[in-house]
Amino acid sequence: MKSVANQGGLIFTLDPHPLAASLADKLGFEQGQSSQRLFPDGESYLRIDTPVQGRHCIVLAELSHPNRKYLPLVFLLQTLRELGATSVGLVAPYLSYMRQDKRFAEGEAITSRIFAQQLSAQIDWLVTVDPHLHRYHSLDEIYATPSRVVAGAPLLAGWLKGQANLLLVGPDAESEQWVSQIAAHSGQPFVIGAKQRFGDRDVRVTLPDLGPYHQHTAVVIDDVIASGQTILKCIAALQTQGVERIKCAAVHGIFVGGVDAQLLAAGLEELATTNTIVHSSNAMDITDLLLTPINECLQDQQKHHVND
Amino acid sequence: MKSVANQGGLIFTLDPHPLAASLADKLGFEQGQSSQRLFPDGESYLRIDTPVQGRHCIVLAELSHPNRKYLPLVFLLQTLRELGATSVGLVAPYLSYMRQDKRFAEGEAITSRIFAQQLSAQIDWLVTVDPHLHRYHSLDEIYATPSRVVAGAPLLAGWLKGQANLLLVGPDAESEQWVSQIAAHSGQPFVIGAKQRFGDRDVRVTLPDLGPYHQHTAVVIDDVIASGQTILKCIAALQTQGVERIKCAAVHGIFVGGVDAQLLAAGLEELATTNTIVHSSNAMDITDLLLTPINECLQDQQKHHVND
Repeated sequence: MKSVANQGGLIFTLDPHPLAASLADKLGFEQGQSSQRLFPDGESYLRIDTPVQGRHCIVLAELSHPNRKYLPLVFLLQTLRELGATSVGLVAPYLSYMRQDKRFAEGEAITSRIFAQQLSAQIDWLVTVDPHLHRYHSLDEIYATPSRVVAGAPLLAGWLKGQANLLLVGPDAESEQWVSQIAAHSGQPFVIGAKQRFGDRDVRVTLPDLGPYHQHTAVVIDDVIASGQTILKCIAALQTQGVERIKCAAVHGIFVGGVDAQLLAAGLEELATTNTIVHSSNAMDITDLLLTPINECLQDQQKHHVND
Repeated sequence: MKSVANQGGLIFTLDPHPLAASLADKLGFEQGQSSQRLFPDGESYLRIDTPVQGRHCIVLAELSHPNRKYLPLVFLLQTLRELGATSVGLVAPYLSYMRQDKRFAEGEAITSRIFAQQLSAQIDWLVTVDPHLHRYHSLDEIYATPSRVVAGAPLLAGWLKGQANLLLVGPDAESEQWVSQIAAHSGQPFVIGAKQRFGDRDVRVTLPDLGPYHQHTAVVIDDVIASGQTILKCIAALQTQGVERIKCAAVHGIFVGGVDAQLLAAGLEELATTNTIVHSSNAMDITDLLLTPINECLQDQQKHHVND
């Protein structure tokens, strides 16, 4: 199939996502067309409408709320392969199942490892943004497939640049890696709080004494906002210390159950996220940061397939 | 681990299901305990609370509405294996993704084959009830793992036995395999209709002339009722021919979107299903029919592990 092997690549999406158009545009890829829906009995239907034979394919799939998305994603990845795609890579702007990275209690499923094993078997490469790496140092510890990780910190630092008199606030020890990276880019001071967790939605956040900073604008920074309880408690802790101007910025905004409205109602001046997960708070575009890692993965694939 | 290898087997469930207790009782298995829930961000948590090391394990998982169930099922199956289960078999009283068994249109995903490949990789054996085998002659064509299929027909025939003056009605050609099996057991006459499908919920059912039978009680028979549209149209076609007494029996009742109430409102005297899928219409218990195939699968496993 030499005649089609030289055609450009294709990008497909699991659910509609604005990154598909911006990535296609900047990578010089074509957007692949597909029909995806559910039958009344809850089973998925998929038809790929663009010929993929001999072409490098990217699937863009944002994997928050992953359970309902996983099988449709597998159908898409496997069918691209069956129909003759030269390679099939996954761009997951948000990667799920990174949190349970050990057996905290006997008998627990290490879902991160199982999910990674399953997903690795479906793809040639993976690019994602700030996966919640805590005890793992690299995705390579659990993903058998080549992967590249994009850091959202430069984007958040760019968004903060030019804003005067800021204090960056990390609500807990896990957030320090993101907050310190951003502070290194933006040159602003930061503090890190301490979090105690008593349940999925029951957390306590303690901040150090903010004496010298309570006239600053606090910007609470986190990698991902899901239930939002940590951020809510952090806002309250800031207010207790007399901090009046509070903003919040995160790489990924999942915002379970309308907690975005609760955050704004709690007194946030501004809530800003990147467009890894589509949301009205998206204020930073991750497209450009994805290009180099995607191109590197594609180049590796082209080396593998040079003799096809 | 010889000391525990002789302990009895364990049965776990994905979602609570009454077959777990009845199967455990009749197989001499213990019910395994586990904690399963969703985090606020939609990811699954699982903890297996019964030691499984050196024991044969069965997972009971009814797979209607499969997308949300698949990853939690994989976490359960893989974690049992990691924790040292001797074997892990799956009893799926209802098996999903059997319908799309070819590319009807170019580019379509053959979801039955992909689902079977994925699921086969997780399990040592599979027992199910009346999978919707149409173009496939056997599960072995798509499942790489040993499987056994239970036919619900004897159960439906038993339920019909002793009811006088019946006419069994299959709404379409696909239902003939079930209706003819039941008629062979029960000795009652049957007719088969013709179905045209124009969309997921848009079907037309035509029945042959029922002249000699319009004083009989018609029993519409199908393997699975999902959207229920076929059965509704079949009831209407019977009523058009003056049939007044109509019942309906099926192996699997999914009953999407409250169609069970619509069926009864359309004039059904009785709606009866087996307990493969839990529903208020469950009138037949599949437990006893599952025992022999499960025991055969377990015996095959014990042969494999005789030297453990």
